[in-house]
Amino acid sequence: MTDWTADIESAAQRIAGHAAVTPVLNTTAFDLGFPVEMKLEQMQHTGSFKARGAFNTLLAGGVPKAGIVAASGGNHGAAAAFAARALGHPARIFVPEMAGASKIALIRATGADLSVVPGEYANALEAAQDYEAKTGAMQIHAYDAPLTIAGQGTCMREWEEQGLQADTVLIAVGGGGLIGGALAWLNGRRKVVAVEPATSCALNAALKAGEPVDVSVSGVAANALGARRIGSICYDLASRVGVTSVLVEDDAITKTQHQLWQRARQLVEPAGATALAALTSGAYRPEPGERVAVLICGANVAPDPFLTET
Amino acid sequence: MTDWTADIESAAQRIAGHAAVTPVLNTTAFDLGFPVEMKLEQMQHTGSFKARGAFNTLLAGGVPKAGIVAASGGNHGAAAAFAARALGHPARIFVPEMAGASKIALIRATGADLSVVPGEYANALEAAQDYEAKTGAMQIHAYDAPLTIAGQGTCMREWEEQGLQADTVLIAVGGGGLIGGALAWLNGRRKVVAVEPATSCALNAALKAGEPVDVSVSGVAANALGARRIGSICYDLASRVGVTSVLVEDDAITKTQHQLWQRARQLVEPAGATALAALTSGAYRPEPGERVAVLICGANVAPDPFLTET
Repeated sequence: MTDWTADIESAAQRIAGHAAVTPVLNTTAFDLGFPVEMKLEQMQHTGSFKARGAFNTLLAGGVPKAGIVAASGGNHGAAAAFAARALGHPARIFVPEMAGASKIALIRATGADLSVVPGEYANALEAAQDYEAKTGAMQIHAYDAPLTIAGQGTCMREWEEQGLQADTVLIAVGGGGLIGGALAWLNGRRKVVAVEPATSCALNAALKAGEPVDVSVSGVAANALGARRIGSICYDLASRVGVTSVLVEDDAITKTQHQLWQRARQLVEPAGATALAALTSGAYRPEPGERVAVLICGANVAPDPFLTET
Repeated sequence: MTDWTADIESAAQRIAGHAAVTPVLNTTAFDLGFPVEMKLEQMQHTGSFKARGAFNTLLAGGVPKAGIVAASGGNHGAAAAFAARALGHPARIFVPEMAGASKIALIRATGADLSVVPGEYANALEAAQDYEAKTGAMQIHAYDAPLTIAGQGTCMREWEEQGLQADTVLIAVGGGGLIGGALAWLNGRRKVVAVEPATSCALNAALKAGEPVDVSVSGVAANALGARRIGSICYDLASRVGVTSVLVEDDAITKTQHQLWQRARQLVEPAGATALAALTSGAYRPEPGERVAVLICGANVAPDPFLTET
C-alpha cells in the first residue's frame, strides 16, 4: 500500500524552491454568515496548482534526453511546459486548435515547443503519442499517476503548515489530482467536500455507480474540470478515506466567479470559483460552528486581460 | 505632537472586523534575483487600502444624521461609500463624468446615492460642497487628515503582525495617505521607499523644493496617484522620519502590471503595480542581503473584467 504521507513529504522536499508557496487568508467578504479560510493556489506558477505535480514528476528523475511531451490545451500543458523549462528539459506540447487563444498563448509564453493541431483534444493526443513513440519523450499524466497526486498533495500539506484551522475543506474536482492529493495527505483528519459542476461530475457519478464510469462533460468549467472519467487513484482514495460529494450549477459558478472579483479582487477561471460556489449557492451548508476552508485552484480565465502582451 | 503609535493602535481596534485582513506572501516569481515579500492590500473592500481610513474616520464618531458626502471618481469615493453603508450612514457621492464607466460602476455597486456630474473633478467637488453646505453632511478627506492617515497606518501594523521581515518597504505615493500611515507607524524602524510615477510625483517635487508644491499630473496611474500636491501630514512625516524617493516611468508601470497578472495572477490597476515597478525596472536596487517588501495597493483596473455584471 502506498505510504502517501512519506510520498507527499518527499514531494514537498523536491519541489521546494520550484513551486510557489501560495498565500492564505480568512475572509468574511462573501457575506455567508461565517468566515472562510482560503488558499490562493491560483497564484501558483502558470496560474493553477498543476505546477506542483509537474515539478514533482520531473524532479523524481528519469526524464529522457528527448524531454517531455504533453497533449493539452489547458492548465496541465502549461504547468508541464513551465516545469520542464525551469529544469532545463525540452518540452513539446500538442495543443488542440479548439483550446482557444488564451490557453494557447499561456503555453506559448512558457517557451515550450508548441504544435497547434487542427481539431479537438483527440487529434492532439494522437500527435503527442506519435511524438512519444518516435522520440522516447516522457508523457506526464495530468492526474492519475502517483507522482502527480503526491505533488498536488503538497498543497494541503503547505496549508496545514500555514495554520489551517478548518474542520472541512471544499475542493473542486476534475480528474481528481488535486482532491486525491488532499485526501491522501489528510487521510480523514479533516472532512473533504468534493465540488463538481452538475455538467461535469465524474467523481459524483463514480461514487453513485460504485466504480469509475464515463460521463458527458460540458458547461462553463469544462475546459478545466471536464474529465470524462475520474482517475482511479482518486476514486480509490475517496472510497477508502471518505468524501462528501456536492454538485453546483453553472450559473452559481459564474456568479461566484464574479463575486471573487467584485469582493476580493481575485480574477479566477470558472473552475477556480467552483468550490466557493458550493457555499455561496447553499449546495453545501456547514453545521453551526463548523469551520470551512475553500481551495482556489485556477485563474487561467478567458479572455486573458493582457493577452495581447503575452 | 501627535502620538501616532497610539492613534494607529486605536484605529486598528476600531476597524477590526470592518476592514479586511489582507494576505501576505513571499515570492520569487518576478526573477529579480532576490525574494520579495508582498501584501495584497488590493484585496481590501472596494479594491484598495482606502477602506481602512474611511472606516476609521466614520467609527471615530461625529457622523451627522445627513451622513457623508464625497466628490470622487475613484478609490476614495468607493471606500467612503462602502464604509458608510456598512455602518448604516447615508452616503452621497458626486462623480465626475470623466471618471469612466468602471469607477462609476464600482461606486454604484456600493449602494451609495450617486450623482454623475457633467465635466471634470472640479465640477463634482463644487456639487459636493453645495451638498455639504445645504445638508451638513460630513466630508471625509482622501489623504490629508489624521484619522485617514491613522487608518491607513493599520496596514503596516497588520503586516508586521503577520511577520514582515523586510529591511525596506516600497510603497506607491499619490496624496500620501498610505505612505504617511506607514511612516507614522514605522517611525524609522524600517527603511521606506516612496515610489511615484515620473508623470505624477508630488512627494518627490516637495522633497526637492523643501515644501509641498503643485505639480502637473498625467500618465497611466494618474486616476489613483495623480495628486497635485502632497498632503501636509505626509510631507511632515517624510521630512522628519526620512524617506527614499524614486520615480518610475509609465512603461515600467504597465509592464509590471502585466507581470503581476502573468506571473502571480494578480490583476491590479497601474497604481497597484507602481511600487513593484521600482524593483523590476531597477529604479530601486537593494544592497546585497537587503530584504525588500512591496505593498500592492489597488486593483480597480479599467476595463473592469465583469463590468456588465455590477
